[in-house]
Amino acid sequence: MMALRAKALYDFDSENPGEISVKKNEELTLHSERDIEGWFEGTNARGVRGLFPASYVEILRTSAGSDNPEAAHGGVAAGSYGASSTSQTPVDQSAKTTPPKLPAHPTSSHHKYQSSDDDWDDDWDESSGGGGAPSVGRHSDGNGPSIYSLSTSAGRGPNAQQGRGSGTVSRNLNRFTTFVKSGGEAFVLGEASGFVKDGDKICVIMGQYGPEWQENPYPFTCAIDDPTKQTKFKGIKSYISYKLTPTNTQSPVYRRYKHFDWLYARLVEKFPVISVPHIPEKQATGRFEEDFISKRRKGLVWWMNHMTSHPILSKCDVFQHFLTCDSSDEKAWKQGKRKAEKDELVGASFFLTISTPPAPLDLQEVEGKIEGFKAFTKKMDESLLHVNGAINEFARKHVTGFKKEYLRVGQSFKSLAQAFEIDQQPFSAGLNHAIAYTAETYEAIGDYFAEQPKHDLDPIIDLITVYQGHLSNYPDIIHVQKGALTKVKESQKHMEDSKMDRSPLEGINERCNIISFATLAEIHHFHQIRVRDFKDQMRHYLQQQISFFQKVTGRLEETLQKFDTA
Amino acid sequence: MMALRAKALYDFDSENPGEISVKKNEELTLHSERDIEGWFEGTNARGVRGLFPASYVEILRTSAGSDNPEAAHGGVAAGSYGASSTSQTPVDQSAKTTPPKLPAHPTSSHHKYQSSDDDWDDDWDESSGGGGAPSVGRHSDGNGPSIYSLSTSAGRGPNAQQGRGSGTVSRNLNRFTTFVKSGGEAFVLGEASGFVKDGDKICVIMGQYGPEWQENPYPFTCAIDDPTKQTKFKGIKSYISYKLTPTNTQSPVYRRYKHFDWLYARLVEKFPVISVPHIPEKQATGRFEEDFISKRRKGLVWWMNHMTSHPILSKCDVFQHFLTCDSSDEKAWKQGKRKAEKDELVGASFFLTISTPPAPLDLQEVEGKIEGFKAFTKKMDESLLHVNGAINEFARKHVTGFKKEYLRVGQSFKSLAQAFEIDQQPFSAGLNHAIAYTAETYEAIGDYFAEQPKHDLDPIIDLITVYQGHLSNYPDIIHVQKGALTKVKESQKHMEDSKMDRSPLEGINERCNIISFATLAEIHHFHQIRVRDFKDQMRHYLQQQISFFQKVTGRLEETLQKFDTA
Repeated sequence: MMALRAKALYDFDSENPGEISVKKNEELTLHSERDIEGWFEGTNARGVRGLFPASYVEILRTSAGSDNPEAAHGGVAAGSYGASSTSQTPVDQSAKTTPPKLPAHPTSSHHKYQSSDDDWDDDWDESSGGGGAPSVGRHSDGNGPSIYSLSTSAGRGPNAQQGRGSGTVSRNLNRFTTFVKSGGEAFVLGEASGFVKDGDKICVIMGQYGPEWQENPYPFTCAIDDPTKQTKFKGIKSYISYKLTPTNTQSPVYRRYKHFDWLYARLVEKFPVISVPHIPEKQATGRFEEDFISKRRKGLVWWMNHMTSHPILSKCDVFQHFLTCDSSDEKAWKQGKRKAEKDELVGASFFLTISTPPAPLDLQEVEGKIEGFKAFTKKMDESLLHVNGAINEFARKHVTGFKKEYLRVGQSFKSLAQAFEIDQQPFSAGLNHAIAYTAETYEAIGDYFAEQPKHDLDPIIDLITVYQGHLSNYPDIIHVQKGALTKVKESQKHMEDSKMDRSPLEGINERCNIISFATLAEIHHFHQIRVRDFKDQMRHYLQQQISFFQKVTGRLEETLQKFDTA
Repeated sequence: MMALRAKALYDFDSENPGEISVKKNEELTLHSERDIEGWFEGTNARGVRGLFPASYVEILRTSAGSDNPEAAHGGVAAGSYGASSTSQTPVDQSAKTTPPKLPAHPTSSHHKYQSSDDDWDDDWDESSGGGGAPSVGRHSDGNGPSIYSLSTSAGRGPNAQQGRGSGTVSRNLNRFTTFVKSGGEAFVLGEASGFVKDGDKICVIMGQYGPEWQENPYPFTCAIDDPTKQTKFKGIKSYISYKLTPTNTQSPVYRRYKHFDWLYARLVEKFPVISVPHIPEKQATGRFEEDFISKRRKGLVWWMNHMTSHPILSKCDVFQHFLTCDSSDEKAWKQGKRKAEKDELVGASFFLTISTPPAPLDLQEVEGKIEGFKAFTKKMDESLLHVNGAINEFARKHVTGFKKEYLRVGQSFKSLAQAFEIDQQPFSAGLNHAIAYTAETYEAIGDYFAEQPKHDLDPIIDLITVYQGHLSNYPDIIHVQKGALTKVKESQKHMEDSKMDRSPLEGINERCNIISFATLAEIHHFHQIRVRDFKDQMRHYLQQQISFFQKVTGRLEETLQKFDTA
């Protein structure tokens, strides 16, 4: 395969180790045409090798010798994943003068911190093919996994060539859009296949407010406790083990962060229109510090809560394996692991497992709902950014400014009490003591302020983080649904132009209907947990605020009494 | 009188109109040898005329032609008043490398803002000699008044030359020390005389904790209300009139700021060892703005409270005239005014009115107590500065930082509520409304913070101002007492050296004893009102703080309820 060249469309300044800066119009050599979660690896004009955002460059192709002739059509072949940079819909192509958003850093940090991250640099079972860690170096061989599985790539089971015959409704092989990657396109075109057992069936029902996932009849939750430092290889390797206790089994299992990470990758691969909650970010250093462990545990608790709340995710085999497989039975664990990695009902084939109510949805109505939700997520994302900024600053001010001001007032009262103590008049003693106590009170209030964010603001910040994760999932989910709708419209047009028979159109309509049902059910679920979580967390926040102000008031009342007896 | 020259000892940068900057070593021409409350008027090397701190320069004298040969002794003749710059005690002379503190601005502003200050530029009755306003222009003629009366200057009644014959115990004519100015020296030397009626008698008694002023048997307070803008000369002149209602007469009188100012000058002149509370500062502009009027009224209320609390001040004739003379009876007012200005029992003669318990005080013990009080005032002054800084900053933070933080959080919640309202799901409506209400709550809490200093911190700031005024009085009071003690020691030594008879020493001892009794009584009174005022104000402060935090808590509880029904 000859060296691929690309030209930078915008300036990009590297901000992290492993990234390289590129200048607009600079030419680069790509090491692979395939991006890694929105990042290309390549060498810039100065000979420096590293990562840069795929959406910041266009691939330069000569018409001859290209590996993928169809890709030359568009001229630009930005391989980025994000919904914002896919040029599938005309709307997205409008403003090309400003650079697109960078790919999310949580995933890009997989690569950057890899070598120093024990979570990845250890005894991971590499024999099981697709389960390995993403890796810059190994990725270019084409077999490396990425978090989003490319279900159109060759060699995945028997979802071969069926349905291709329709000719004019072509696959968008020139773009790795989410629609293509997720398997949505393959499914709509009838290319997906797989053996779906009754137990695999996922039901969408018609609820009061529209399509809903059928509730898990055996709901459960799962506690995450006792993060404990473990060592192996006689202490050379260390890791943190978490105790997971599902309420339905009451049998604890012990898992490491890398197990969560592996599970997360499986789930993302399997469920194209389900918003899999993000696991807490990786971190290179300080992984054994108490603060970090506590923060990560909280993140995992949130993640677990969203997993067990989800009617589909909570029931799925790989999650059940994760929750129930005896940690000490290595063989059983590996078996389940291999089984999950070989699961055929992922991506395109996942849609085969969905059963919908008989009456199809009105396409126009679905389109309206999806558009509405898209506007909603955009606004919610903006406002979460806003709240996050305000709350973080508020928390910072508690620890710095507020505390400082109350401390300063306390210290000034202390100096007054000390000055007054120079006067040994007996009738002044009570006052002196009361002022000294007031000084202590104000110092205590300063400390109360500094302690408070832990109790009230931090949980709000955690809530925001979880929902920012979900919101970053939705552009892809919406994209899959929109891709299906577009396919339906294209097919309709082709049929009207008499280029296509009616029969494949019906199949396309039906399959698009399934995607629409699933998407709307997922959106409904999102709204339900959103209302639940924000209600719970706002209540918790206000309760904590009330306790805080009551504590301050109580302390002041106690202080006032010192003057009553002074 | 030939032009006096002075040389600057330190750099001084003018900060107000009327002042001139001087450079170290710059030579200046003085317009008068006499300073005006710590400021000299003169012309600098660049020919600019204006005021500068007397303590920043030394007067250059030629041995011949000096108006006051004795003044040449010291070489430096800084005419400033402040206790810190009097070089009577060796301790004060130590650190001359840093410039002394500037004279207080309240009084210096008398001059600077005079021409535009209606308080002084109006229908004041100038016929009564000493009652006029301090004035730069008129001051150098030697007849102009200053707030501290120079009771040693010629022409004040019959307190002539008696007792001078003792020869060796000479008067400190070369320095206008407080001891000299207050009349303390004249009194100790037996030079004071005056006709003291029984009604003029001021009693010091022996209380539980030492000498005390005899309580006013008819205590009263006096309300200050209804600051009202009045005009005269058909509206050309405007002023604010305050309604004063003493509780003992219940007859309101109406007084202007200039009446308070005149009264204040009389009291300071009359009572050498009594700490006369300072009246609120003069202000050149904005005198008719609501904030200023309210602030001045509060200052006058504090002043009045300290006046009526004082056993001696509350009873004295000039204050009673001020409180009771019918405002509309111009003739009666002028009569009382002239009488007060002709009062003979001021300064040195004031001490004649004091009657003490029969047993004299132990000089050593008095000295110890005075030293202790001096240390106390120094420490209290420092700590008030500390508290004032902290409290002012705290108040500023309430209005700026604290408010801003709560507002910002409120606004971010508002943006979240707005984002959530895009979702028209009925099950979300209650939450959206509750979050919107939370947004309003946080904006309201921000406003509560901004409103709060008015209720709790401002009164503390007022308290501090009043006590800073008292503390600035005490160096002079202590100085008078110390001057008397020094005179006693000098006389003792002279007697031991056989330079003096025993008989004048006894008189000196007796008169020093009177000053000591009066000083200790005043110190005791200070401690009493200090304990009373700080207890009251700290209680008030804490009560207001409690109300504030309760209000915040109540509002949060109300907000939490919105989520209960959401």
